[in-house]
Amino acid sequence: MPPTRPAIDDPLNAFCTDTEAFLPGAASGPLAGLHFAAKDIFDVAGHISGGGNPDWKATHEAAAHTAWAVQILVEAGATMVGKTHTDELTRGIFGENAHYGTPINPRGSAAAVAGGLVDFALGSDTGGSVRVPASFCGLYGLRPTHGRIALDGVLMQSSTYDTVGFFAPDAELFARVGQVLLQNPIPRARPHHLVVVEDAFEVADPEVAAALQPWVDRVAALSCTYSTQRLSPQGLTEWVHQQSVLAGCEALERARDWIERVDPRFGFEVALRYATASTFKAADLEAAQNARTAIRARVDEVLQQGTVLCLPTAPSPPPLVGRPLPQRQALRQRIVALTCVAGSTGSPQISLPLATVDDLPVGLSLLGARGSDELLIGFAREIAAAQARV
Amino acid sequence: MPPTRPAIDDPLNAFCTDTEAFLPGAASGPLAGLHFAAKDIFDVAGHISGGGNPDWKATHEAAAHTAWAVQILVEAGATMVGKTHTDELTRGIFGENAHYGTPINPRGSAAAVAGGLVDFALGSDTGGSVRVPASFCGLYGLRPTHGRIALDGVLMQSSTYDTVGFFAPDAELFARVGQVLLQNPIPRARPHHLVVVEDAFEVADPEVAAALQPWVDRVAALSCTYSTQRLSPQGLTEWVHQQSVLAGCEALERARDWIERVDPRFGFEVALRYATASTFKAADLEAAQNARTAIRARVDEVLQQGTVLCLPTAPSPPPLVGRPLPQRQALRQRIVALTCVAGSTGSPQISLPLATVDDLPVGLSLLGARGSDELLIGFAREIAAAQARV
Repeated sequence: MPPTRPAIDDPLNAFCTDTEAFLPGAASGPLAGLHFAAKDIFDVAGHISGGGNPDWKATHEAAAHTAWAVQILVEAGATMVGKTHTDELTRGIFGENAHYGTPINPRGSAAAVAGGLVDFALGSDTGGSVRVPASFCGLYGLRPTHGRIALDGVLMQSSTYDTVGFFAPDAELFARVGQVLLQNPIPRARPHHLVVVEDAFEVADPEVAAALQPWVDRVAALSCTYSTQRLSPQGLTEWVHQQSVLAGCEALERARDWIERVDPRFGFEVALRYATASTFKAADLEAAQNARTAIRARVDEVLQQGTVLCLPTAPSPPPLVGRPLPQRQALRQRIVALTCVAGSTGSPQISLPLATVDDLPVGLSLLGARGSDELLIGFAREIAAAQARV
Repeated sequence: MPPTRPAIDDPLNAFCTDTEAFLPGAASGPLAGLHFAAKDIFDVAGHISGGGNPDWKATHEAAAHTAWAVQILVEAGATMVGKTHTDELTRGIFGENAHYGTPINPRGSAAAVAGGLVDFALGSDTGGSVRVPASFCGLYGLRPTHGRIALDGVLMQSSTYDTVGFFAPDAELFARVGQVLLQNPIPRARPHHLVVVEDAFEVADPEVAAALQPWVDRVAALSCTYSTQRLSPQGLTEWVHQQSVLAGCEALERARDWIERVDPRFGFEVALRYATASTFKAADLEAAQNARTAIRARVDEVLQQGTVLCLPTAPSPPPLVGRPLPQRQALRQRIVALTCVAGSTGSPQISLPLATVDDLPVGLSLLGARGSDELLIGFAREIAAAQARV
């Protein structure tokens, strides 16, 4: 008889109620006794990955295998207690799902951690879906180096942007989970040089920039040296379009056959993103690829020799749910102006839950060269330890 | 106590099951004893008009008043037995609804008439939604002169294209219903001149054109004179784009506030049409308006002095449901090439269920100058009577 999931008290509407994906953790291991969740794009053998869309769920079979990231956590002793809600086919950033409702503050996996329903959670980050909910929910969250954590058994959208990341409420636990998923120890680490990204702070609300400033100073003080630089002469909003084109076209290509066959129901905002992608021409794609190449070169130049960038994770505190589409689109543009730096370059980025604005969480991000995931997590732990000593 | 609706045996999935809109007809009148249906965009006091979209239904109140067209039929003695399925917010032509399924062969109101569930039905025709299902289901169907039948109490999409029309299985009953809705007697009538529209027959499948040809000959023989002409030198497909732009933008404008507020779930094909409309610029609109003006002038020139156009209603027999999106879009382009003649000019058009291809119905259409609705219905009755004498 398969183990049955204990009933979950879920006042946040974080968990999917129509799947009983429950995987008891191994008896011993570095994560023994901990509980985690994963959104409903992570395969669990014998269950359908619903992807946040009822027509996707109705037209797909149960997974034959469990996703690599889930399996490695279970083998390390952690128990998976259930699947959480997701934006439709991960295409969204606010966690507002037209079919299943919106988890309170504000999304599935992150909400489950923030609300204390689980100890940590897996997530996925294509355009910001680990970093931004981490900022909005007051959690640590990592978008790893592109390709660093295996995507096997995860329903994703854009092959050159997709990553599997994770959330935890404190830096110590975050490092424990990180060493399992990265399969590498987390060192004590401080960057040789910290660059405060001026044009990133320009994207943020003035109150967010002001609330983060004391933390920027502390993080700079913990770094060997630091400086302030601009990444883009005209500002980071100039970098948004190329990612919208490239990630949008990849997502459409991946879903196109299914969409054309099933005519699935989408919330309009999600449908609009697929529809917009269908209007891009070969020349748009080529221009976007050239822009991404230039952005990569610029960021790699700044990230030489152990440099870490410091930037706001999101431009605002968590927004209220149910706002009109134009406001949502405007905020998403500003969010992507911040998240596209790591997205376009494949760099790792960790969000630290350091500040608040009107009692709402705002995250500070550290972004390093490709492969510096352990350095970032280790430095986050140093920052938290330094703060604890104050 | 309000009258309760008798149970409807509905093997076709034509009727909405979640509304009990039932209006007994007046005891006497020209339509006494007849039963009709109307799709779920026609208001019935005390019931929500669902518009084929569950989120529309959930965010709207019950209608305070019954639609004019429904009321006039009830006062003439006809009983409304229920509401039938509709494309979402009338945006579609195949009657395939992602939320409520597809009526058998192939759409709500027309399917209910064709299946003998009611004697006749109201419909709406913005881009062809009376004429095309009439052709597909083997019924008479009229798109009236624009503005001729009041739209009060009907959820419509495009103010310069919307019309209320109707279906019936035979020409005699069609004329009886027509004189109530047009509030005018139907004369015995034959056109002074019939124009066979060469470029319209070029749009149709060769088998459809061949099946209609004997009927074209008979209709021509019943007209005083006839000729063959082209409307567009480059073919009618050149006329499709201007209507897609204008009707699409009007539909988006009408729904925009609601869409932005609710983020409603749409089937992807419907969402794609709203999304496409959002990409049109002011210059696109101006070009489309100029094109429509030129089309009106060309058609008005041909329609002088009691001339009637003869054309296929639809380019093909009824298609199978569930075909992939690209095939659906390609067929819809060809359908609109035929339906846009009346749509762009506000002219009335009646479809006559005269021919078949492989036992599937194909309609022949008559299109007259604005205000010639009674002439077209009267001529259709003459054609049927002449055929009965053969």
